[in-house]
Amino acid sequence: MPEFRHDPVSGRWVIIAGERAGRPEEYRRAAVTRLEIECPFCRGREHQTTPTVAWYGPPGASSEQWEVRVIPNKYPALAIEHRTREAGLSESSLDAALFGSRAGVGKHEVVIESPEHVESYTGLSDDQGFWTLAAYRDRLRVHRGEGRFAAASVFKNLGPDGGASLVHAHSQIMLLPETPETLARELDTSAAFRRRHGVCVFCAMLDRETQHGVRVVAESPGFFAVCPFASRFAYEMWIVPRRHASRFEETDDATLRDASLLLKRAIRAMEDVLDRPAYNYFLHTSPLDRNSYEHYHWHIELFPRTAKAAGLEWSAGWHLNTTPPEGAAAALRETFPPR
Amino acid sequence: MPEFRHDPVSGRWVIIAGERAGRPEEYRRAAVTRLEIECPFCRGREHQTTPTVAWYGPPGASSEQWEVRVIPNKYPALAIEHRTREAGLSESSLDAALFGSRAGVGKHEVVIESPEHVESYTGLSDDQGFWTLAAYRDRLRVHRGEGRFAAASVFKNLGPDGGASLVHAHSQIMLLPETPETLARELDTSAAFRRRHGVCVFCAMLDRETQHGVRVVAESPGFFAVCPFASRFAYEMWIVPRRHASRFEETDDATLRDASLLLKRAIRAMEDVLDRPAYNYFLHTSPLDRNSYEHYHWHIELFPRTAKAAGLEWSAGWHLNTTPPEGAAAALRETFPPR
Repeated sequence: MPEFRHDPVSGRWVIIAGERAGRPEEYRRAAVTRLEIECPFCRGREHQTTPTVAWYGPPGASSEQWEVRVIPNKYPALAIEHRTREAGLSESSLDAALFGSRAGVGKHEVVIESPEHVESYTGLSDDQGFWTLAAYRDRLRVHRGEGRFAAASVFKNLGPDGGASLVHAHSQIMLLPETPETLARELDTSAAFRRRHGVCVFCAMLDRETQHGVRVVAESPGFFAVCPFASRFAYEMWIVPRRHASRFEETDDATLRDASLLLKRAIRAMEDVLDRPAYNYFLHTSPLDRNSYEHYHWHIELFPRTAKAAGLEWSAGWHLNTTPPEGAAAALRETFPPR
Repeated sequence: MPEFRHDPVSGRWVIIAGERAGRPEEYRRAAVTRLEIECPFCRGREHQTTPTVAWYGPPGASSEQWEVRVIPNKYPALAIEHRTREAGLSESSLDAALFGSRAGVGKHEVVIESPEHVESYTGLSDDQGFWTLAAYRDRLRVHRGEGRFAAASVFKNLGPDGGASLVHAHSQIMLLPETPETLARELDTSAAFRRRHGVCVFCAMLDRETQHGVRVVAESPGFFAVCPFASRFAYEMWIVPRRHASRFEETDDATLRDASLLLKRAIRAMEDVLDRPAYNYFLHTSPLDRNSYEHYHWHIELFPRTAKAAGLEWSAGWHLNTTPPEGAAAALRETFPPR
């Protein structure tokens, strides 16, 4: 059972999920080669995975004709069940302060984005790309309705350098027991911005970036793709809806389809410029609780895993980016597919 | 000139150092192979580097007989010179809020740990290992004396996965214009711990960890090597002085030598268990200003780069570690070299 542990020095929370790996051999360099003779995510091998909890396909299709499906993660980083801490270590309050932990309550689902053995989001059909985002939306709706989870983390890891352990195109939905640090900070900072300037920070950013032009990569009817001013990573891009909206799960089909097409083109441009790098994207959206986050503006953050986070990032928490976003945006604009 | 940029959404600071790289070709996968026919860090090629600012060697040695030397980084991520922002973008206060930046004032030095072309800290002689730590100490003393820098970040990157761009054993000293986020947080959290429990969090940790035993990897006369309770990474180890001390730069020679020997053995154990992985280590010490940080306890954090930080880490700020530190400590103890 995964366990949340608290570091008394930094205040960090860490998830210790010992069931997922653990033997030193798995980290040895020779072990990096992973054969996938029988990919469990391909059509026809559904019996090798956990049972489907949601699926998408053309009108009238049967469940065997799924194009996108959602399954529980076989090795969840967070599980729904509770566990109380073993007694023994936590007798004194000093021990409790040093060795703070709690059960890793949550849920972990996988979205299989295609029945074919494609790797990248750019290998998906337009429908599959749309259904992938629709799966995120619909699952968030379901889980928000349950009222058990504080927030969700939705992301895609691609390539070994991107943290993916399977090649077949997939993404992950993690339901979290509390609002994670990164999101909490964005909520605070954007609320402060709104109070101070009377406008949503993303709406202001879109307005000014359009005027400046230098960091805008592309636009669609409903979205912008922009290299953010303080990009952490070379070629980082944000896909931001033009219309202010704080909850991704309330997005309608037409808007989602627009988003999926722009996301696909953005990834294609990045793959062209950087020769198909590993990458990650992340959905940033409001927590799943009943509070209002009207000041927040959902968006997708995308970045290639070209540079390895190193010394300064880990020691200081400051990212070092050697490609100014203005130059990245210019290169991406040049290869951006017309559609 | 490097530039600090502020992200208005997250509050993050990012260093944009466009001089250091920037062309997409450098990120393409084929470019990963790096030939080092003429390593500029090897003895005899001193003319290929910036001039030595400090060096170490046996008594009576001349500067050509250096065993460890310190040079300014040729491509500094932070430079001493100031730059004011270009006009044009910052007319309105909204623009200032969206596009906040300042000059990346600081200093960036490199410690070359051996005149021979060895890669890891475990390839250093005992003297070289000691002089490497002595170089950190002495440079911090010099820079603290200057009174210009808020704090230092001292770290070693090893291997491409560890963020190193040169093979030859080296580490980096960055002098920072302000106390970085990660250190500020440790200072706050450890001060709060001290106020609440009347004891330094590290002193308490060493006391309890010794009693529990399960996470202690090794001990030396003056130091502990422990896998911390909330390890972010598989096989993460902290090297912590037994005696409470908040400033690394005040460490005496005998204590430094003890630390260097334990660090070398810890890295050797990690290399044995994991087949010579990429790794990083970081010196955590008090800021360089005149304030008192008596509650803080300097230490070294060491971890192999086996797992790639992925989705959850980037999106939530929560690390996912699949190797419980108790198991890691047991494996490391088993192969820990007797000396």
